[in-house]
Amino acid sequence: MNAALRAVVLAAEHYGIETIAFRHGYQGLLENDAMPIKAKDVLHILQYSGTIIKSARCQRFKEADAAQEAAANLDSHNIDALVIIGGDGSFRGADHLANHWQGKIIGVPGTIDNDLYGTDMTIGYATAVNIAMDALDKIRDTADAMDRVFIVEVMGRDAGFIGLGSAMAAGAERMILPELQKEKPLTVAALVKHIQRVQEIRGEGSYVMVLSEHQWPGGAVALAEQLEAEHHLPCRPCLLGHIQRGGAPAPADRILASELGVHAVELLLAGEHRVMAGKRANERVAVPLPDTWQKKNPLDQNLLRIQHEIFNPVKKNRRTKTDN
Amino acid sequence: MNAALRAVVLAAEHYGIETIAFRHGYQGLLENDAMPIKAKDVLHILQYSGTIIKSARCQRFKEADAAQEAAANLDSHNIDALVIIGGDGSFRGADHLANHWQGKIIGVPGTIDNDLYGTDMTIGYATAVNIAMDALDKIRDTADAMDRVFIVEVMGRDAGFIGLGSAMAAGAERMILPELQKEKPLTVAALVKHIQRVQEIRGEGSYVMVLSEHQWPGGAVALAEQLEAEHHLPCRPCLLGHIQRGGAPAPADRILASELGVHAVELLLAGEHRVMAGKRANERVAVPLPDTWQKKNPLDQNLLRIQHEIFNPVKKNRRTKTDN
Amino acid sequence: MNAALRAVVLAAEHYGIETIAFRHGYQGLLENDAMPIKAKDVLHILQYSGTIIKSARCQRFKEADAAQEAAANLDSHNIDALVIIGGDGSFRGADHLANHWQGKIIGVPGTIDNDLYGTDMTIGYATAVNIAMDALDKIRDTADAMDRVFIVEVMGRDAGFIGLGSAMAAGAERMILPELQKEKPLTVAALVKHIQRVQEIRGEGSYVMVLSEHQWPGGAVALAEQLEAEHHLPCRPCLLGHIQRGGAPAPADRILASELGVHAVELLLAGEHRVMAGKRANERVAVPLPDTWQKKNPLDQNLLRIQHEIFNPVKKNRRTKTDN
Amino acid sequence: MNAALRAVVLAAEHYGIETIAFRHGYQGLLENDAMPIKAKDVLHILQYSGTIIKSARCQRFKEADAAQEAAANLDSHNIDALVIIGGDGSFRGADHLANHWQGKIIGVPGTIDNDLYGTDMTIGYATAVNIAMDALDKIRDTADAMDRVFIVEVMGRDAGFIGLGSAMAAGAERMILPELQKEKPLTVAALVKHIQRVQEIRGEGSYVMVLSEHQWPGGAVALAEQLEAEHHLPCRPCLLGHIQRGGAPAPADRILASELGVHAVELLLAGEHRVMAGKRANERVAVPLPDTWQKKNPLDQNLLRIQHEIFNPVKKNRRTKTDN
Repeated sequence: MNAALRAVVLAAEHYGIETIAFRHGYQGLLENDAMPIKAKDVLHILQYSGTIIKSARCQRFKEADAAQEAAANLDSHNIDALVIIGGDGSFRGADHLANHWQGKIIGVPGTIDNDLYGTDMTIGYATAVNIAMDALDKIRDTADAMDRVFIVEVMGRDAGFIGLGSAMAAGAERMILPELQKEKPLTVAALVKHIQRVQEIRGEGSYVMVLSEHQWPGGAVALAEQLEAEHHLPCRPCLLGHIQRGGAPAPADRILASELGVHAVELLLAGEHRVMAGKRANERVAVPLPDTWQKKNPLDQNLLRIQHEIFNPVKKNRRTKTDN
Repeated sequence: MNAALRAVVLAAEHYGIETIAFRHGYQGLLENDAMPIKAKDVLHILQYSGTIIKSARCQRFKEADAAQEAAANLDSHNIDALVIIGGDGSFRGADHLANHWQGKIIGVPGTIDNDLYGTDMTIGYATAVNIAMDALDKIRDTADAMDRVFIVEVMGRDAGFIGLGSAMAAGAERMILPELQKEKPLTVAALVKHIQRVQEIRGEGSYVMVLSEHQWPGGAVALAEQLEAEHHLPCRPCLLGHIQRGGAPAPADRILASELGVHAVELLLAGEHRVMAGKRANERVAVPLPDTWQKKNPLDQNLLRIQHEIFNPVKKNRRTKTDN
Repeated sequence: MNAALRAVVLAAEHYGIETIAFRHGYQGLLENDAMPIKAKDVLHILQYSGTIIKSARCQRFKEADAAQEAAANLDSHNIDALVIIGGDGSFRGADHLANHWQGKIIGVPGTIDNDLYGTDMTIGYATAVNIAMDALDKIRDTADAMDRVFIVEVMGRDAGFIGLGSAMAAGAERMILPELQKEKPLTVAALVKHIQRVQEIRGEGSYVMVLSEHQWPGGAVALAEQLEAEHHLPCRPCLLGHIQRGGAPAPADRILASELGVHAVELLLAGEHRVMAGKRANERVAVPLPDTWQKKNPLDQNLLRIQHEIFNPVKKNRRTKTDN
Repeated sequence: MNAALRAVVLAAEHYGIETIAFRHGYQGLLENDAMPIKAKDVLHILQYSGTIIKSARCQRFKEADAAQEAAANLDSHNIDALVIIGGDGSFRGADHLANHWQGKIIGVPGTIDNDLYGTDMTIGYATAVNIAMDALDKIRDTADAMDRVFIVEVMGRDAGFIGLGSAMAAGAERMILPELQKEKPLTVAALVKHIQRVQEIRGEGSYVMVLSEHQWPGGAVALAEQLEAEHHLPCRPCLLGHIQRGGAPAPADRILASELGVHAVELLLAGEHRVMAGKRANERVAVPLPDTWQKKNPLDQNLLRIQHEIFNPVKKNRRTKTDN
């Protein structure tokens, strides 16, 4: 977030535009909690996680009168354009505001979940994968030494991006992702079978599983208990939680944030409105805001195929053979 | 572990002693799963977590006939002395074995929990604190941006070393440690009160809590639900689990492992037996094995006082004042 | 490298192909230093830097008789196809070998320098940028506290990818890159002027510079001495060297390596020969080997513009104004 | 530094003492650049390197009139006591000031070099060793893959603490430390002989060397050139420089800073003056300021013996044997 904020401020200054920041997102917009922000204020914030202008959830913003208040506050500062850095909720809010305000609005995709349509990557995703992978690497060290089963629960809202990215990067034996669950929900029996086959094939018991949030009732803790109590598989859970939202941002996130922050300002200068500044297949794009949350950003099918099939130690045909 | 193994092997070679390693700890000892191990085998393992000779739990080792089998296996290799790297369970096993075997036995304290009497630090503790602190730092980034309450559950068995060390290093607002719980168990009401006072005093909501394992029924997940459901405090749990056992070892652990591995070999050469090679107040010491688990390694009282009282944003006297 | 090797071996196994590895690259090919390699051998190597089959430079391989020897060795194992993981030198060698050997050859782009034409990223580049950025972040901490000038020398051979990527990610005040130097070499006078203007504009002295290797006689050490001795600017050099080639691989590198390793095997199955398995604008591509080093991989012009112009605290027009 | 500053401020507040900070160290003291500092100002600075009150060198402070000016400035704020966080230079300054000022002065040992007498560790040392070790680990990855010689130049002023600590933690093959050089300077011939013997004994060429600053004319760059040009040993230098002063502080440093910051305030309350708050063999101590720089803090002789002799792959007696 900081990196995107910095890019917007620096690009604005470059083009001779003044900038004002609202603290705490929409909540601050309603409370008119504004501060002028200049190049000097964003010096050397690039390496820090979080955001110097803080963020917050704001339930009330969905209502019409909230958007009208926000519009009035924006007008009170003579603001011509608003850059919103955030995810799907922020963009819905932005679109809602656009119905009640005359100024121009550009979104910058900032969410760890990578679940916005129209851009290959969202700002924050690379860092989240990095952190989840690092946790999986550490787990692997122990798993190898102790021949055990481990479940690491990662974030992602309703999308499996963090799950797939970290599972692939860390070479996990199994992923439980929303996209896979929707297709064919995994049963405990099938899971236990897979674990046992992997252990047979390899002659060792290290088995690391990535579980996307909301994909198992009770999460990693409950699944671990189930495997241990019902199937006598010693199993340890790990719940990463908000660790995934912190830490020094990965280079890919800082670079993307710099590009898209500048891109947002240049879209404004080009007269664009109600779009998200994105990047797809190396091209800068402008994506209509409603598309970003109405259309689904699909998982990379090739990565899914590689991780789920090609790198799967248990082959489908082999399974059939031994099953008969 | 690798660092200690390497130190034992290098020191042995230095003194002209041959070394044999048993894979998977006591289990390997019972299965006679031995391998000669030389300087060349431990080259460049220092930076890797886990252990190249693997580890395992071995329930059966407690029985007398298991110790006799182990003794027979040791004798079959003409082994004169055994160096055991491990924690309290390993040392109990070592002492048990000593009743059935003629060779000399030296322990090297290797556990992340730091709960062995007689040595200031155990090998692995510094790394575990490092990892827990890193997680807390990442949580803090988000906590600051979102003004929320977070609970991070850390390891430690029945001791609060990892909890205290990481809470202090990361500046947590609250620790729930076995030692503190034993003295005066924390009630949810008292916790809620503390959270609210901290938020009042500081005018912001970031509150990070370190919870030692086994100190709350259901752990961090349950406590977070309780705070959110019963007290409307938005709260997020995080369960580090075995992440704390992995990762590149911290320098302090590698250096201590090097010292104590060499110390163990030199204790053997000096004729010592049934002792743990430890370090206390900068001195190398030899601690009788039974002391290591029968006596309690107390938390550093000064650190506890600093973190729990001096750095506590809510002062006792202030509390009294406002309470009346 | 390990990640790519693993992907090739796992994909080969998936498709029922046997694999043999040659240790130490072309040198091992000449010495017929081969070993069968299976899925089990590449288990859990993903997180480690370097390569389990080691690498080496081999001057002799350029000669015709060397390629003939290599061909004979390959034939002695009945090898049908060779996958070469490496950079520009390795690919020249591969093409040379193709003139003397009947088997199929596919390259996988593995170099930290990102200087191969035909693929957006090479395997290793993301990790190198990560490490350079981390060093720059650490330098920034001190630079901020001490208001000094720092020069960090990074790798890149004749290309500025690591320089640009790390400078942008870390928000460096100045980059000295081959591509910029070719256009208009930086003089010490111009550099000193820039430093002084930045310090004036910001009212503080922190100035961090990224210097690509081979772009200043004597490198960072010499430039620092020049600035200090001739211009009284306290300046500290830092030479990252081979640190940039180590460390746990970044997720982007592991994922790319997995994709391209599989892609290489699938290109072989599709009958391709003398091409590099690459990825460009999200598409998997097959690039003729000679193109990879004969054509130039240009820096991303938008990133260059952002970092060098938009984020430059000293604006060209401002400069003109104050100069008159 | 931040951690120590925070501890002083929090402890002061705990005991009802007001605190004022001077920015830029002694320079700020001369310029009367003071700011009140409270618990709120040091919230969550623990995890950041550097110092929020900045630091600077101040040549002029050595003069008598400078100390008198400083004393006047201190008196103008009605300051009773001054806590100085710094190294040997800062403590000389503190002692000088004590000759011209009536207030009490306590030093807190903050230097990465660990070269202050009277305390086992200085604040910053653990972090510097961590960073140097991390660089050595990364170098090792490449060294192993490429069988080369590497030289990493580390800081330490005139002491070998960072050199010894990082060499031991990373398992370097050779250290060139001030303490060893003073005893018997290493010749290039002896170094080359050692390198070749290590490569012979191990059958591989990976050789990593830690060079303390000021211990070789021209540093690591010059030594690498010498080995390569004169002795045909392919060799790569690496100059860590100020990287060692940055980065998230290690837990040991944060904990020590917390302890010593509180200790400093409590020493003041106990009426102590002109002493450094230190920790030795687990005890908090008060060391007369002049002792801290006049007496030498020796390297840990046991660590030196282990790393230099016991872990040395080339044994002295073996060398004699093969020499004849």
